Amino acid sequence: MQIESENLDKKVGFFLSGWLWIKGLIEKFFAKLREIAKQIEKTAKDDPRRLIHSLKVGVALTLVSLFYYCQPLYRSFGVSSMWAVMTVVVVFEFSVGATLGKGLNRGMATLVAGGLGIGAHYLAMVAGKTCEPILIGLFVFLQAVASTFIRFFPKVKARYDYGMLIFILTFCLVAISGLRSDEIIEIARKRVLTILVGALTCVVVSVFIYPVWAGEDLHLLVAQHLDKLGHFLEGFGERCLRTIEESDNLVGLNTVLDSKSREEILANFARWEPGHGKFMYRHPWKQYLKIASLTRQCASRVDSLNAYLNSKSHAPKEIQGIISSMSRESGKALRELSLAVETMTRPSPYPNCHVSSLKAASKNLNSLLKSELWGEHANLLQVIPVAAVASLLDDTVTSVEKIADAVDELSSLANFGNAIGGETTEDKSRNGVVTLVGIVIEGSDQVKKGQSSGLQAG
Amino acid sequence: MQIESENLDKKVGFFLSGWLWIKGLIEKFFAKLREIAKQIEKTAKDDPRRLIHSLKVGVALTLVSLFYYCQPLYRSFGVSSMWAVMTVVVVFEFSVGATLGKGLNRGMATLVAGGLGIGAHYLAMVAGKTCEPILIGLFVFLQAVASTFIRFFPKVKARYDYGMLIFILTFCLVAISGLRSDEIIEIARKRVLTILVGALTCVVVSVFIYPVWAGEDLHLLVAQHLDKLGHFLEGFGERCLRTIEESDNLVGLNTVLDSKSREEILANFARWEPGHGKFMYRHPWKQYLKIASLTRQCASRVDSLNAYLNSKSHAPKEIQGIISSMSRESGKALRELSLAVETMTRPSPYPNCHVSSLKAASKNLNSLLKSELWGEHANLLQVIPVAAVASLLDDTVTSVEKIADAVDELSSLANFGNAIGGETTEDKSRNGVVTLVGIVIEGSDQVKKGQSSGLQAG
Repeated sequence: MQIESENLDKKVGFFLSGWLWIKGLIEKFFAKLREIAKQIEKTAKDDPRRLIHSLKVGVALTLVSLFYYCQPLYRSFGVSSMWAVMTVVVVFEFSVGATLGKGLNRGMATLVAGGLGIGAHYLAMVAGKTCEPILIGLFVFLQAVASTFIRFFPKVKARYDYGMLIFILTFCLVAISGLRSDEIIEIARKRVLTILVGALTCVVVSVFIYPVWAGEDLHLLVAQHLDKLGHFLEGFGERCLRTIEESDNLVGLNTVLDSKSREEILANFARWEPGHGKFMYRHPWKQYLKIASLTRQCASRVDSLNAYLNSKSHAPKEIQGIISSMSRESGKALRELSLAVETMTRPSPYPNCHVSSLKAASKNLNSLLKSELWGEHANLLQVIPVAAVASLLDDTVTSVEKIADAVDELSSLANFGNAIGGETTEDKSRNGVVTLVGIVIEGSDQVKKGQSSGLQAG
Repeated sequence: MQIESENLDKKVGFFLSGWLWIKGLIEKFFAKLREIAKQIEKTAKDDPRRLIHSLKVGVALTLVSLFYYCQPLYRSFGVSSMWAVMTVVVVFEFSVGATLGKGLNRGMATLVAGGLGIGAHYLAMVAGKTCEPILIGLFVFLQAVASTFIRFFPKVKARYDYGMLIFILTFCLVAISGLRSDEIIEIARKRVLTILVGALTCVVVSVFIYPVWAGEDLHLLVAQHLDKLGHFLEGFGERCLRTIEESDNLVGLNTVLDSKSREEILANFARWEPGHGKFMYRHPWKQYLKIASLTRQCASRVDSLNAYLNSKSHAPKEIQGIISSMSRESGKALRELSLAVETMTRPSPYPNCHVSSLKAASKNLNSLLKSELWGEHANLLQVIPVAAVASLLDDTVTSVEKIADAVDELSSLANFGNAIGGETTEDKSRNGVVTLVGIVIEGSDQVKKGQSSGLQAG
């Protein structure tokens, strides 16, 4: 009896542990599924154009597979139809600029390399039956070495890297195939035609169905980063006076600081794009890169500035007020510049008026700081971090000034229009400046009063 | 006579202008040639491994073109030999990690997609002659949409982007080819075999002929950037006392600041690499990225610090001296850390001893600054920028401390050995600290003297 019940226990235990194991597996599987579903949702929400792009690729592939479905088309192209499918898969990119760049690279490289390959084939044939393979091998080797080396040139790498790859590929295939097939010209003709059809399909689908322009992305990105930085500075102004959560703002700052390579890639793609919407063909994309670089420089200063927020300096109220309003005004100036870039309107007619008054405020702050030092020795312990913040703010203002100049340059290079509500914007900024100057004067008045009362007391 | 001479003049003029035009063209041509020659020389000099890489590509291509040269090989593989050539051109990359990553991606994706493609083909065949093309079209469309969308997932994009591309390509080619050819399995077999041969050739040539390891590059890059930053800080210390040219140093700083994407790409490649030299298979490459990120953060602080050099503050000699020696010591600490990373030796047994004494010096500096303010009011005008520099230096020291911690973590993660001359390095750094503390004490003594004399005078 006992042995039987033990056996039963063992069996139950075995089934139980098996069931738990299977249950665990199923749970893990569903957890993984949920994770993937979340990932899908996030990817689509972050940029809904991704979903559209995926559908576009599907459409383009279905279009070129007509080569296989249509009897007459397949009869004339045969296995070469494969190259149309390959071209679509490899050339179709997210933005129009990237697709055009790859398509043109592939088309040109195929034509040139095909021609040279056929030339090499005939040259080798002239040399006779025994020399032919040796010569072809030599050509292929030399061409591969030279082209691979040229791919390291920075200019070539930035714009024609894919073209060079296809050049090596096509030259090798055409030249070597010549050894084994006499219909080399026929093969080359079919291949070039199918590749052109594939590239054309990509370009047409990319341009005419919900196009994604790299230029527009760059344009918005630069404006957005200016806005983020301005927002951060405004927030910094607020935080000088009280404590606010700052973590999400910092993330924004890091995005600005680490954006260099993304901006450069977008600018590179944008240069392939034809005129579209508000952008002409030779839109000054390089100027955007300049603004972006200055924005990053400014963000680096602001990052240092932010480090002082944690030191919680209890500076005199007036000075805190001035620092706060200076950084808020810098922030506003940046956001105005961002708006000017985004809406492609000229920044206010006196672009530096705003900024130069900031400069004046910064000078006032410095002298105020000095007089404050003269006036009350008790505050000395708190003066050093405040002085550092003032100096950094001064740097930041210089940075903002440079950005304003660069945006102004962009507006004349790209013929920005005048703002519809231009007067209002200008008025606003002037009001801002008046407020600011008012604050500075008021602050220094207070200090002077303090000083004179100190003197009287003395 | 006159008409004839006029004609002659015209002819001479024509020939002359023609000659000048041709001469100009020839000169331009030679100028262009010289420019290209310079470019070639620069590209090869910047990194001689580029030349070797080009030769390696030539060798690998020549090896796989044996498929065409050898009668027995060509008899068994035919036009599929093309895929070996294509694979070599597309997969062969500069570093072993990149080549391995692409090769494995291509190999795996081809196998999986080939299998699924054949499956789709048979599934569609079961449905009958009329439904077959419709089903195949549907499969191709759905697969393309899903795979293209998955390519946007950040994790997939970083490591398996190429694999997904090849997956789409292979699935489409196999599934669609099935419509037109009955030998689909035979075609797939040949293609997979030639692709594997191509990928294997790449990997073998890449690993066994002068290999370029992405991991080693990352390792050296991180050490080099630490060294550059240290060098810059040492130079800053020198420049506090006198004026030195700084332009080339600043360029170095910008290289450090803009290195993020390059480091991330290298780390990504490094993860594909097997153990080699001093590195094991799962070397903590992520820790290198952490150090690099902290280095960039420190560089950003140093960049702000550098902005003050132009303000030419004439601080009191003692304070200038302390700032100078503090930044020199920070620089030395960084260069020591760089050496530790480069030689893969544990940093000195008390890694923070060096840095914490820097911290103490920084505190001393601050109190000295304050007492200086108390002592001599006449220097107040110069105090503000000096205070800012002192604060920034304090931040920099905190940054250096963080880097020291990260390097220490790396040394335990990667089992760094002990330095052969470990004692000496430690002694050196201690000597450095002793000198530094000496300077600070001496400086504050001088100030105390000044203060007490001031008090006596009062």
